[in-house]
Amino acid sequence: MPVPKDGEVLLKARYMSIDAASRAWMQGATYRDALGAESLMAGRALAEVLESRHPDFTAGELVFAEFGWQQYAALPAQALRKQPACTPLSHLLSVYGVSGLTAYFGLTEVGQAKSGDTVVISAAAGAVGVFAGQIAKALGCRVVGIAGSEDKCCWLREELGLDAALNYKAGALADKLKAACPNGIDVYFDNVGGPILETALTLMNLHGRIVCCGAVSAYDSGVPAPGLCGVPFQLVVKRLSMRGFIVSDFFGQLDEAQAQLHAWVEQGAIRVFEDIIDGFDSLPAALIGLLHGENRGKRMVKIS
Amino acid sequence: MPVPKDGEVLLKARYMSIDAASRAWMQGATYRDALGAESLMAGRALAEVLESRHPDFTAGELVFAEFGWQQYAALPAQALRKQPACTPLSHLLSVYGVSGLTAYFGLTEVGQAKSGDTVVISAAAGAVGVFAGQIAKALGCRVVGIAGSEDKCCWLREELGLDAALNYKAGALADKLKAACPNGIDVYFDNVGGPILETALTLMNLHGRIVCCGAVSAYDSGVPAPGLCGVPFQLVVKRLSMRGFIVSDFFGQLDEAQAQLHAWVEQGAIRVFEDIIDGFDSLPAALIGLLHGENRGKRMVKIS
Repeated sequence: MPVPKDGEVLLKARYMSIDAASRAWMQGATYRDALGAESLMAGRALAEVLESRHPDFTAGELVFAEFGWQQYAALPAQALRKQPACTPLSHLLSVYGVSGLTAYFGLTEVGQAKSGDTVVISAAAGAVGVFAGQIAKALGCRVVGIAGSEDKCCWLREELGLDAALNYKAGALADKLKAACPNGIDVYFDNVGGPILETALTLMNLHGRIVCCGAVSAYDSGVPAPGLCGVPFQLVVKRLSMRGFIVSDFFGQLDEAQAQLHAWVEQGAIRVFEDIIDGFDSLPAALIGLLHGENRGKRMVKIS
Repeated sequence: MPVPKDGEVLLKARYMSIDAASRAWMQGATYRDALGAESLMAGRALAEVLESRHPDFTAGELVFAEFGWQQYAALPAQALRKQPACTPLSHLLSVYGVSGLTAYFGLTEVGQAKSGDTVVISAAAGAVGVFAGQIAKALGCRVVGIAGSEDKCCWLREELGLDAALNYKAGALADKLKAACPNGIDVYFDNVGGPILETALTLMNLHGRIVCCGAVSAYDSGVPAPGLCGVPFQLVVKRLSMRGFIVSDFFGQLDEAQAQLHAWVEQGAIRVFEDIIDGFDSLPAALIGLLHGENRGKRMVKIS
């Protein structure tokens, strides 16, 4: 148990977020320093204040922080984002947390999705994908999800109400995607990069938008990803835009986004799918399993 | 000599624009139909009205049109864009035409270049590049050009006033580009795609913009271009945007753009570099030479 210094807050982890990006952090420097073999394993957590040595925080409050895989941490107050009360608590890590917000800002700000657009989402059964699919439906789009098993695709159609869902492991993705998007693709919400991005590029409409949210196809590999065909040629020919983002780029609009997500949840337009695993010792297996596509919706580990 | 029908205008070509994109049109459908072996060779021209069978045009007026490689054509009035008087006439095909406008809209609208930015331009001695470099300087940017010979680089530094110019054929481009951009790259104006784009990607700053104007590295090749590394990974990590465009996307702002270009020319901030070849029979060699990098500035063929 660490002892907080002046200006620090002693915290107890409640839920640890499991994110594919953690794997990318091990590959080298990204928007954060590389995660080396001797480092504390990085991970974001919803945590509870046990003891505060900073005037802005008091015991019992909830915060979100880059916490690391540990049960307790003493962190400087400026590293914490205070969270409201919420039932269930886990929603702060899913629909109202990075997953829901990433889906929201990716579609509305980066992708400029609007009613009538055809939106294609890869890793559609993943943490961000389950919200992106439902938000796109709520915006009035035709929504096609791509996932890695027939089971997931069935679930995406039946439980999330997507217009179509395609299993990329079953082959012939280009033909199936073309058939599922008879009017072409206006917005491609890309969580994977690689060959699926290449396929989507060929079906994009004039002035289409590609939302670059992640490149999970390249995270869990020892070898560099093969090059991508069609860039920049397809971008010039069809005047496409591709834009990368991370959710914190839009934190200036956080209140508005959370209010909209809350309204959709209340209306039943968004159902919150979570994949909660119990116990601190489950952390490594939870991440490895995520990278193998085990989860449906946001995976997290309940610590205490 | 064709005979104009009702609603058509009989035209005589004055200057034929020579464009790298013509080569891409032969490779397949792009933003226009593919140019087949039996077709009239496509090409845009500044032409003079000889006889009009449409009330909007009268003999002696100048127009810009997709004309084809021929000396005379009878075209429907709606395919023509009327041009103002201009001395010299050739400026209508260079600084006030597609080249100058592409450079202008690419930098200001697509690239959002602003004072203090570092702007890198490939094919910097080409038709669009010579204007892009000078416009970026006029906007207060640090400007680094990339071209295919020491001669051109010398000329870019001395005549265009670029801050640095690099010969990509001399090797070690990544190191040289890094040295020439000590504060990274904010805007990369890409005319070439391929390995130079890959190199620029690694040096882009957070929230950098890549202007996808052309992919000439892929136009004159019988084999598909190799894949591009770093997309979408670099886009996500550095929250970059890449956006393709063609100049007609911005024709709503044509008057404002031409007025600004005119003011810069009057002030001496933009010098107009043109590469004018004489005679209709020079057309094929002019295009082949352009694809081999012969030209400095806008290449055109004077027909009559």
